[in-house]
Amino acid sequence: MAAGPVHEALAALNLVDHHCHGAVTHGLDRTGFESLLTEGEAWPGVSPFDSPVGLAVRRHCAPLLDLPRHAPADVYLARRAELGAEEVNRRFLRAAGTGVFCVDTGFAPDRVTTPAELAGAAGATAYEVVRLESVAEAVAADGVEPDAYGAAFRSAAWEAVRRPGVVGVKSVAAYRTGFGLDPEPPSPAEVTEAARRWLARGGRLDDPVLVRHLLWTAVDLGRPLQLHTGFGDSDLRLHRADPSLLTDWLRLTAGTVPVVLLHCWPFQRQAAYLSAVFGQVHLDVGLALHHVGPARAGTVLAEALEITPFRKLLHSSDAYGVAEFHHLGALAFRQGLAGLLEERVDADEMALADALRIARWTGRDNACRVYRLPGGPLDGAPDDG
Amino acid sequence: MAAGPVHEALAALNLVDHHCHGAVTHGLDRTGFESLLTEGEAWPGVSPFDSPVGLAVRRHCAPLLDLPRHAPADVYLARRAELGAEEVNRRFLRAAGTGVFCVDTGFAPDRVTTPAELAGAAGATAYEVVRLESVAEAVAADGVEPDAYGAAFRSAAWEAVRRPGVVGVKSVAAYRTGFGLDPEPPSPAEVTEAARRWLARGGRLDDPVLVRHLLWTAVDLGRPLQLHTGFGDSDLRLHRADPSLLTDWLRLTAGTVPVVLLHCWPFQRQAAYLSAVFGQVHLDVGLALHHVGPARAGTVLAEALEITPFRKLLHSSDAYGVAEFHHLGALAFRQGLAGLLEERVDADEMALADALRIARWTGRDNACRVYRLPGGPLDGAPDDG
Amino acid sequence: MAAGPVHEALAALNLVDHHCHGAVTHGLDRTGFESLLTEGEAWPGVSPFDSPVGLAVRRHCAPLLDLPRHAPADVYLARRAELGAEEVNRRFLRAAGTGVFCVDTGFAPDRVTTPAELAGAAGATAYEVVRLESVAEAVAADGVEPDAYGAAFRSAAWEAVRRPGVVGVKSVAAYRTGFGLDPEPPSPAEVTEAARRWLARGGRLDDPVLVRHLLWTAVDLGRPLQLHTGFGDSDLRLHRADPSLLTDWLRLTAGTVPVVLLHCWPFQRQAAYLSAVFGQVHLDVGLALHHVGPARAGTVLAEALEITPFRKLLHSSDAYGVAEFHHLGALAFRQGLAGLLEERVDADEMALADALRIARWTGRDNACRVYRLPGGPLDGAPDDG
Repeated sequence: MAAGPVHEALAALNLVDHHCHGAVTHGLDRTGFESLLTEGEAWPGVSPFDSPVGLAVRRHCAPLLDLPRHAPADVYLARRAELGAEEVNRRFLRAAGTGVFCVDTGFAPDRVTTPAELAGAAGATAYEVVRLESVAEAVAADGVEPDAYGAAFRSAAWEAVRRPGVVGVKSVAAYRTGFGLDPEPPSPAEVTEAARRWLARGGRLDDPVLVRHLLWTAVDLGRPLQLHTGFGDSDLRLHRADPSLLTDWLRLTAGTVPVVLLHCWPFQRQAAYLSAVFGQVHLDVGLALHHVGPARAGTVLAEALEITPFRKLLHSSDAYGVAEFHHLGALAFRQGLAGLLEERVDADEMALADALRIARWTGRDNACRVYRLPGGPLDGAPDDG
Repeated sequence: MAAGPVHEALAALNLVDHHCHGAVTHGLDRTGFESLLTEGEAWPGVSPFDSPVGLAVRRHCAPLLDLPRHAPADVYLARRAELGAEEVNRRFLRAAGTGVFCVDTGFAPDRVTTPAELAGAAGATAYEVVRLESVAEAVAADGVEPDAYGAAFRSAAWEAVRRPGVVGVKSVAAYRTGFGLDPEPPSPAEVTEAARRWLARGGRLDDPVLVRHLLWTAVDLGRPLQLHTGFGDSDLRLHRADPSLLTDWLRLTAGTVPVVLLHCWPFQRQAAYLSAVFGQVHLDVGLALHHVGPARAGTVLAEALEITPFRKLLHSSDAYGVAEFHHLGALAFRQGLAGLLEERVDADEMALADALRIARWTGRDNACRVYRLPGGPLDGAPDDG
Repeated sequence: MAAGPVHEALAALNLVDHHCHGAVTHGLDRTGFESLLTEGEAWPGVSPFDSPVGLAVRRHCAPLLDLPRHAPADVYLARRAELGAEEVNRRFLRAAGTGVFCVDTGFAPDRVTTPAELAGAAGATAYEVVRLESVAEAVAADGVEPDAYGAAFRSAAWEAVRRPGVVGVKSVAAYRTGFGLDPEPPSPAEVTEAARRWLARGGRLDDPVLVRHLLWTAVDLGRPLQLHTGFGDSDLRLHRADPSLLTDWLRLTAGTVPVVLLHCWPFQRQAAYLSAVFGQVHLDVGLALHHVGPARAGTVLAEALEITPFRKLLHSSDAYGVAEFHHLGALAFRQGLAGLLEERVDADEMALADALRIARWTGRDNACRVYRLPGGPLDGAPDDG
């Protein structure tokens, strides 16, 4: 659609999608597909197709299924079923033009592609991101005494990140307690006491002391830490997922591991502030970009980039379940970013060479740098920043 | 001004203004008019005409009084006085092109039109929305024992919503306590104890226990519940009116009555999130649209629609006092929405048929659906969603 | 670049920069310059030039050093060193086109120009703004008994504001405690008790009781009060610097001194709300404008002006350290404001005369009015509002 040298450069760039999930490997009926189209619960009488992301699917995904742009939902679903999950996934994952996927394997209520399967379908490379809450819950499920929990979790997390292909860890503390936590690490006695309560009660990890313990353990693992912030499903209290609530913790952990704030919307400016004042903080606006669609992706990116250093923004799709989202996330990022960079070049606010550098950094190189990806363009080489 | 098929369709659409108030029935001098032009207190030496809404009045309302666009404030006021309140109201209310007004009758420090008078002047239909705090305060004013308050309020609210023409209820909890409330319903004993304190003290209903009781009673009434959120007058603490603070309460009340978040600005993205994840949540950006004026209405609507399902956005003016606002609210909605939809159709991000459907839904049909308006285009018919 | 009558009028207008700091008077090496370019800590391997403000410096400041637009950082720094601090400061300060600077003299970790030196280099007039926390800390450093602290601070503040050239006071309460304070004035006994703790402990003033005492003392001084809000350095907790947290205090102090909310980003809409409902509240988006750069200044200003009365917005650069920022702040304000006004005039949403008046007010006259600047265009004259 839009053209120009930055659009062309971004169209040709093999992206790194530094945070996503797998795609379902089975066929989907209307209910199944629609439930994956939305972060929300079912809306009685309201189809998720009648939403910005629904329009984006009909506009930008239909042609990849050999349908006209804006094909009706029923036609789309029929054609999708006809092609079958494997072919559909292959088409969207190839169309994404993503060279590297970093896959969060800790969330899969459905049967979804493994990182290897995702890589295979996409013709790309996949790495793994370990969700620490899942590690902690596995430790609990395996049975552990309260006073051994702290060490057991730490040890399990170390083991998990040492597996081949693991490039980072992730926490969903935003969902479990929100970020209004005491920023200090809890004492071993506090951890034991909290573990006693949690293990007796069961359920998912949502104890504030244990969440703090998890975050401080993450720091010791020495791997980049992804933190869900902002937008997500109905399990969230959005105001507690404002990343600026993490300020004191970020101050205490400055100089340790890279922290990547995921999603951020509608707190992208708060995240931008943190990335501008704390050396270790990075951000993306994944998930938001395909939900708002290419029509608004440029606006969200422009807010995210208002004061963000250009080495601090990364690309992710946060796609889960339907491979449409792996494609749409990449497309919205490319179109949104190219649009805003091109506009600034045209207004002579930015040199073309700078725009091309920013496109390359945010679309690929920043992720290679943060995750030390083998074979990445900066692998072992001095920083070109 | 702007043209195109969506502009034309919206210009021709009889809107449903699902939340507004009456217009004053007496003449207004400069002080009186200016005090209705602003949500704020008087600004010494600063005329409310020197504000975005003041410019919008001079631009878009002056021609309806047979004046040139951008007529000076003095000229505007003189002509307004010359025509008289009745004629002025008639002109603006007809110009609004609104077919249905849902009128909040619980706020009227001035003598304003009744719903029937508003309907008559506009050549439209009017329904009523019952403000629950006014019901509670009337119960207190009539005299009630603390241990009878809970049942008396409930019974008065039931009676109020059963009156002919009542289509919904409203709460101004945002003003009274803000939304940082315990989400659980209070026990009868707590209600009695809180009523004892409140009835002894008098004044408006601002006890947190009684506000919770009011919100939970609203759920039992089975009618759509309008909640003031965000922007309002100086009586507000804006940060406590962030609708995301209501998340836990919305989770507990999921599957019950429709909730419509009013105004929302500057929390329209937070409201959009809630509408995307909770089936019962709807929103509007009324009040904000005429205060920011047509020049910014498109931006505010674009943020409100970033992830909002298209069946979840409604139109309201929240006009109070001056009929200019009934007109401006409708105008800003039409121009802002048409501008953004037209732009997306032009960019081929949306099919024209979808744009027209979204215009019809948000301008009229969503309100008919939520309030089950008799004679509405969807009355008794299966949902066309 | 852009042209039109509002651009021309703003280009010719002698601005009042109502809040800034001095520029360093010594040469700067790369590390020194880069550390002044960012509000943040050092980013290992990331140059502050690779940020929106870095691009803006290379685009808009390089030509003033006789370099091509977008000159590389190394070339820029070499030329800057070659010219020397005095010449560099002179060039940027003159280019700013600012007629009056109000200088906060209470923050100067580096040796920077005094107000008189700044005025001399710029060919402008300079006034002084007294930072109240510095006054309080000087009182403590001079030695005072806890029970004498309240009166001693009050007396020192009175003396400070009575010095010639002082036009206002400032507080950085946002940094020290945030705005989630009890809005009531503390009692003398509370002040004594808090002073006892603080004087024993030493360090900067961050006791909540003493910060409240400082804010209430400010009200008694009868001078305009500048409050840092929103964006700043890593010493901040951004969410506690949301100006809407000040609502109760603003309600209690309504009708006293003018309050100017500084910076505000990303809370410019919250600040706009406060300015619309409280007579004494004004705002600027200083600091933010040069950090986001001219490419985004119009968007930030448009949000700040969404509902703000046009007599309530002021211009500031909040420049500190490098005179590039005095220039860029003025440039971003001029270009951003002219762009948005011109666009509205073109769309016939605003008359040209109104646009020119708004440009003059926000760029100069509002500050003259708030600070009663001698020789200002409104000095002693009746308000033209």
